[in-house]
Amino acid sequence: MKIITDIKAMQKKADELRAIGKKIGFVPTMGFLHEGHLNLIREAKKRCDTTIMSIYVNPTQFGPDEDLDDYPRDFDRDCSLAEKEGCDIIFHPDSKQIYPDNYLTYVEVEDITSVLCGASRPGHFKGVTTIVTKLFNIVKPHVAVFGQKDAQQAIVIKKMTRDLNLDIDIVVAPIVREKDGLAKSSRNTYLSGDEREQALVLNQSLKMAEKEIKSGERNAEKLKSAIVDLITRQPDAVIDYVEIVEADTLAPVTIITNEVLIAFAVKIGRTRLIDNIVVQV
Amino acid sequence: MKIITDIKAMQKKADELRAIGKKIGFVPTMGFLHEGHLNLIREAKKRCDTTIMSIYVNPTQFGPDEDLDDYPRDFDRDCSLAEKEGCDIIFHPDSKQIYPDNYLTYVEVEDITSVLCGASRPGHFKGVTTIVTKLFNIVKPHVAVFGQKDAQQAIVIKKMTRDLNLDIDIVVAPIVREKDGLAKSSRNTYLSGDEREQALVLNQSLKMAEKEIKSGERNAEKLKSAIVDLITRQPDAVIDYVEIVEADTLAPVTIITNEVLIAFAVKIGRTRLIDNIVVQV
Repeated sequence: MKIITDIKAMQKKADELRAIGKKIGFVPTMGFLHEGHLNLIREAKKRCDTTIMSIYVNPTQFGPDEDLDDYPRDFDRDCSLAEKEGCDIIFHPDSKQIYPDNYLTYVEVEDITSVLCGASRPGHFKGVTTIVTKLFNIVKPHVAVFGQKDAQQAIVIKKMTRDLNLDIDIVVAPIVREKDGLAKSSRNTYLSGDEREQALVLNQSLKMAEKEIKSGERNAEKLKSAIVDLITRQPDAVIDYVEIVEADTLAPVTIITNEVLIAFAVKIGRTRLIDNIVVQV
Repeated sequence: MKIITDIKAMQKKADELRAIGKKIGFVPTMGFLHEGHLNLIREAKKRCDTTIMSIYVNPTQFGPDEDLDDYPRDFDRDCSLAEKEGCDIIFHPDSKQIYPDNYLTYVEVEDITSVLCGASRPGHFKGVTTIVTKLFNIVKPHVAVFGQKDAQQAIVIKKMTRDLNLDIDIVVAPIVREKDGLAKSSRNTYLSGDEREQALVLNQSLKMAEKEIKSGERNAEKLKSAIVDLITRQPDAVIDYVEIVEADTLAPVTIITNEVLIAFAVKIGRTRLIDNIVVQV
């Protein structure tokens, strides 16, 4: 496995791969890899000849009071895990190269970035769409794989890709969960043993809501209340948002008539966790 | 010469050209071609194997009270002129395909888009950087050629290209002028005979300012006043802005110590014209 840190070198490598007809699959990550990320590599490998993973903790998607400095990092472990999974290249750029002095250009998707996580993390998706555009221009992939865990991010990236005519297939891979149902996340490492236990309510509440819909419940407000009630029974759980929206457009839903995304962000102690489920009716 | 109107067909053609090692040169225009545009084709042809010109009057770079509907168009004449100049492909997309319903994504360069033309045309450069990003992703050029006539546009596009890591060489071709000095522009067609005569003051005032700098004048305010005085002697000339700024960064200049851009926008009757000169000291 090759590690590339220089932008021009990465572009040159991508050109070389394309010139010999290789199909490039791309997995952008912030590192501290878990099974969810490794599954993204597997999805890329299914579809492409060469798999490139970027590991870069992107400062522009963190708010001023967020966990940029504390975000867990372990580059050596990441490399060893990615290599074992058959990743071909790690792109690991330096922040000074990605955002040099006097950096001025941003990509923004309007409307669908101001709800859900966008409402509680202003500027977050502007940072995400900007870095993803930059990484696409550097890695030049045919296919890019994102995780359903960040459901809104996946929808925003798909919309941006379509709107900007980026000639890249966006693949969204399913959420990978621990055996007890907790969605895998680099941030799970922040949880104490007791918080880890309380966090199980997140997946449980999604399962409960899915069951209710399957049994005929169509009232989104009622379902949201039931989720809030269940989650807030945990002593250290503070809800950021619980939303039920159209799965494609993130438009608010009152009466469920179509496929919906149930998504939330909840703080367990000091750790903000997100989870979601798509339910077909 | 081939005419392509479909986005996917253009991307496929670009892929084919790249696969056989052809270097693609791109000239984005809004059509109604004049000698200035044809010179951009020549600059592209010098550097590349295949030259692609886009002809598309981009609605998002026009303000609500601007001349989008009246902007001059003559597609057949454009094709014949471009073909004579050796252009290989015209990309002529439909607006519905470029901005479909529920279009949401924009590219913005901050700071340097809020001065000069950006100050009098809010949103203009957001429209320019968005359409240019889209066209870059559709045409997939190695080299793109812009005209120095739109000096601020060229600087904004260069900044965007660098910031977003677009792997494209931006070439800026010199202003092409009529024999009497008026900068070529599709909008010159709006001018009456008398206005056309009055518009000569634009180039004359730039020449005057250049001569003053070469003779030792370093006071930017004094120079701006001299330009304003000269232009406003014409009965139908109304100044939008006159600025003297650093040629690379568009930062304001008080005392001229380095290369400067002298740029202005002036209405002659109802026609807004721009012109500029870069002066080395």
